[in-house]
Amino acid sequence: MAPAYEPLLAGETSSNNNDSNIIITQDEVPINKSRVTVVGSGNWGSVAAKLIASNTLKLANFHDEVRMWVYEEVLPSGDKLSEENVKYLPGIKLGNNVVAVPDLEHAVRDANMLVFVTPHQFMEGICKRISGKIREDVEAISLIKGMEVKREGPCMISSLITEHLGVNCCVLMGANIANEIAVEKFSEATVGYKENREIAEKWVRLFNTPYFMVSAVQDVAGVELCGTLKNVVALAAGFVDGLEMGNNTKAAIMRIGLREMKAFSKLLFSSVKDSTFFESCGVADLITTCLGGRNRKCAEAFARNGGKRSFDELEAEMLQGQKLQGVSTAKEVYEVLSHRGWLELFPLFATVHEICIGSLPPTSIVEYSQS
Amino acid sequence: MAPAYEPLLAGETSSNNNDSNIIITQDEVPINKSRVTVVGSGNWGSVAAKLIASNTLKLANFHDEVRMWVYEEVLPSGDKLSEENVKYLPGIKLGNNVVAVPDLEHAVRDANMLVFVTPHQFMEGICKRISGKIREDVEAISLIKGMEVKREGPCMISSLITEHLGVNCCVLMGANIANEIAVEKFSEATVGYKENREIAEKWVRLFNTPYFMVSAVQDVAGVELCGTLKNVVALAAGFVDGLEMGNNTKAAIMRIGLREMKAFSKLLFSSVKDSTFFESCGVADLITTCLGGRNRKCAEAFARNGGKRSFDELEAEMLQGQKLQGVSTAKEVYEVLSHRGWLELFPLFATVHEICIGSLPPTSIVEYSQS
Repeated sequence: MAPAYEPLLAGETSSNNNDSNIIITQDEVPINKSRVTVVGSGNWGSVAAKLIASNTLKLANFHDEVRMWVYEEVLPSGDKLSEENVKYLPGIKLGNNVVAVPDLEHAVRDANMLVFVTPHQFMEGICKRISGKIREDVEAISLIKGMEVKREGPCMISSLITEHLGVNCCVLMGANIANEIAVEKFSEATVGYKENREIAEKWVRLFNTPYFMVSAVQDVAGVELCGTLKNVVALAAGFVDGLEMGNNTKAAIMRIGLREMKAFSKLLFSSVKDSTFFESCGVADLITTCLGGRNRKCAEAFARNGGKRSFDELEAEMLQGQKLQGVSTAKEVYEVLSHRGWLELFPLFATVHEICIGSLPPTSIVEYSQS
Repeated sequence: MAPAYEPLLAGETSSNNNDSNIIITQDEVPINKSRVTVVGSGNWGSVAAKLIASNTLKLANFHDEVRMWVYEEVLPSGDKLSEENVKYLPGIKLGNNVVAVPDLEHAVRDANMLVFVTPHQFMEGICKRISGKIREDVEAISLIKGMEVKREGPCMISSLITEHLGVNCCVLMGANIANEIAVEKFSEATVGYKENREIAEKWVRLFNTPYFMVSAVQDVAGVELCGTLKNVVALAAGFVDGLEMGNNTKAAIMRIGLREMKAFSKLLFSSVKDSTFFESCGVADLITTCLGGRNRKCAEAFARNGGKRSFDELEAEMLQGQKLQGVSTAKEVYEVLSHRGWLELFPLFATVHEICIGSLPPTSIVEYSQS
């Protein structure tokens, strides 16, 4: 990561950039190069910046420099997060062309491609702060998993961005454990787009590397819902692990979970496609989340304790104060199912919530009948 | 398991049956009850007999008695396999209404529902032996995974049965580790049928229990191919495990494998449905096989040794003389791909075979580009 932010004028080249910034092909001097800013700098944000920065150096129609908005923190060591991402991604070089920017408005003002990758609860505030302060031709993409599911329907982050900023917004989801991608282990991701295939392909080019294979599908809602609903299934898988029921049962529960993810998404949005669930955002992210992941892990501990220690207690002990997304998503989904009279259609989703709140024992996860 | 086989006349009730054999409902005395014979008595065959036998006791339109053809072996202990299945399923009670029959012709002659669950290489011989010696109204189902894939197309076991015996044949596949189902851990399975939905539902009723949930899809070829092709993907997953690439990469490889299973099946049989791959036979069996299973395990050892010890050597050491189905299926699939000019469409399938024969190092499993 470049050590400091230097104010830039639009079109100007940062002194941090290396010589390959201006790429002149034989036929033409590229104009209207795109400028990318990553809004967020947790570990997934940092890895996204690394992926993007490796591509902007190579692709003629992007400015080399990638700005990354870093919520400034001074660590106990005295290090500033904007100087090196020692907190979220120590030891990983993001590329000299990644410029850390502690000021949000400065970070976004010159970009025409905004990559949002913050915790979901911050997004509304961020949108309000940058509204009216971004370029008119901005295209956005959200990498944020785990939006809330309200009774009247899910509060899609992509919709929130579109509503607040008046820009088109794609999503990128998939089996993406940041630390594994940081060390360039092979992975995949899915870009969901609404209408403009060309923009989706631009995002694919920006993220795609030989170890991070990205493909695009025309289904924003399906892709985005996968990233949230998988956490409910991961709890179910964790219960099975805690009960030591074996791989057969776990596979069955994951399959039923995937079926409910698909059915729920399609009931909420008729535009959702079955094929989306075969993409990285669907089956692959589900597998990753049900093999590793903290939702699975805490649910395993919950079942091992026969449900006698609450999730609140386990979270406090195992997650250093963080909360499990799966538990709140299961609750939100249950409210939708209950409100719409769909409980019987989704026995796995319903059962997960009832186990979480102690209404049913963990063993119930395999005791519902076929829907 | 009943201790011995007693010759039966058609329509006669075995003295081994318990009193509940004749179920008289208030409205009618059921006639034309179906008689079931399980052809095969390995561990999956024994578990299938157990599932079926628990249902024939309950269902009015089935004879209680389930015959199971047992290829007679006298074990070193002096025990006969037809007396107790101590070799394949020790300690599991199959039900008093399961009757072990060492004579194949006697086993099948009175049945109108034949369940085939032998190693696939025995099926042709079995069909020849029983051809012309079975009832005319026989319905068959194959639980046999891993048919051969010949250059001119796969040699489906269900087709082989239909051709030799002139009977309709369904298939039952899924995430079915016999030993886990034997102890009644929750699992699922998929029945694939050709045209007759009613027959498929009859098979579903015969196998379905609260811990073994069966559903039917109209897609024999898709269901049957899943049971074979998954073993190729399991090798790929094993390579990833051996290279210690993490869950993210493993999930990506499993997803790509599922995509190639689907695409290959559809190219071979235009009738194959996408939705089949969401069933237990598809995604769930794939997950089970890629988490446990000997294909995965041997492939892990192969990759850990950098491909320097051949599969022949590892199989001899790890499988007590058995051969891995995945390795031969990968070879057979490669021949089809090569013969039809499809190699580039199936980079994962092709790469698995090339790794198995030592043409490529195990690390190649993540080094192909997007198809």
